[in-house]
Amino acid sequence: MIVLGVDPGLSFTGWGIVETFSSRNKINIVKYGCIKTTSHISLVQRLSIINTELQYIIDTYRPEVVAIEELFFLKAAKSVAAVGQARGAIVLTIALNKVHLFEYNPKLVKIALTGYGSANKHQIQYMIKTLLKLNEIPKPDDAADALAVAICHINTVKF
Amino acid sequence: MIVLGVDPGLSFTGWGIVETFSSRNKINIVKYGCIKTTSHISLVQRLSIINTELQYIIDTYRPEVVAIEELFFLKAAKSVAAVGQARGAIVLTIALNKVHLFEYNPKLVKIALTGYGSANKHQIQYMIKTLLKLNEIPKPDDAADALAVAICHINTVKF
Repeated sequence: MIVLGVDPGLSFTGWGIVETFSSRNKINIVKYGCIKTTSHISLVQRLSIINTELQYIIDTYRPEVVAIEELFFLKAAKSVAAVGQARGAIVLTIALNKVHLFEYNPKLVKIALTGYGSANKHQIQYMIKTLLKLNEIPKPDDAADALAVAICHINTVKF
Repeated sequence: MIVLGVDPGLSFTGWGIVETFSSRNKINIVKYGCIKTTSHISLVQRLSIINTELQYIIDTYRPEVVAIEELFFLKAAKSVAAVGQARGAIVLTIALNKVHLFEYNPKLVKIALTGYGSANKHQIQYMIKTLLKLNEIPKPDDAADALAVAICHINTVKF
């Protein structure tokens, strides 16, 4: 199973592709990165860039599933508006490709990776590095967050 | 010039098509309506419905311009998140159709229709009815709001 994890944002959308085989208890990292857009261009241009790059990722790696964190509302309304618009464009891109989308509560992502729901960023990132047998922690943080939700999906469907 | 006004929302997206001719100082109403989605279906399904219906409207009426209100942040973060996601899917749909998008400050929409920025909903709706020579106020409110921003665009580019 090939899973694409996405961490939506208007300026930075993290993404990560992992794969797993039902016969083996192992998760392989395939590729990860970050789609960046600048606030100097229009919203139309920013959402078009996110759509084009995400389409390229889907065409290249053909994920069977996309995993994404549920939107949470702790942040300021302005930041929720920016993330919300990026997330709407991302979810529509996934829908147009007819790829299954799974949404996970941020707390569940922490539990799936570390075993407890109050884990901090460094503990999450350390577990990503360990589970994916990497030499270093994936950068930027948005890409690490995207890998975390992809791993969460694999660990959740396994049980 | 054919203008499509849109008032984005996850449950109710109002839309309205108006047309104007440079030779005449008149705005004709063409069609208006509301795209509705229920919270009983998934976000993927809701954004897909909004995309499909908006695509049908664009294909049918071939607007040269889409006008939309700027997102404002007075509401609760949860409501901003819902509107934001719908708006992201709508803006991406417009971008994929390569139709020009213009965003207007809500206050400017009020000024363009009534002459002052503190006009209430009833004053705006009365002006829509008068300007478009309608027998009654367009319903629902979301469709009226969409017509208001379309008229705002026409009145703004005229000067």
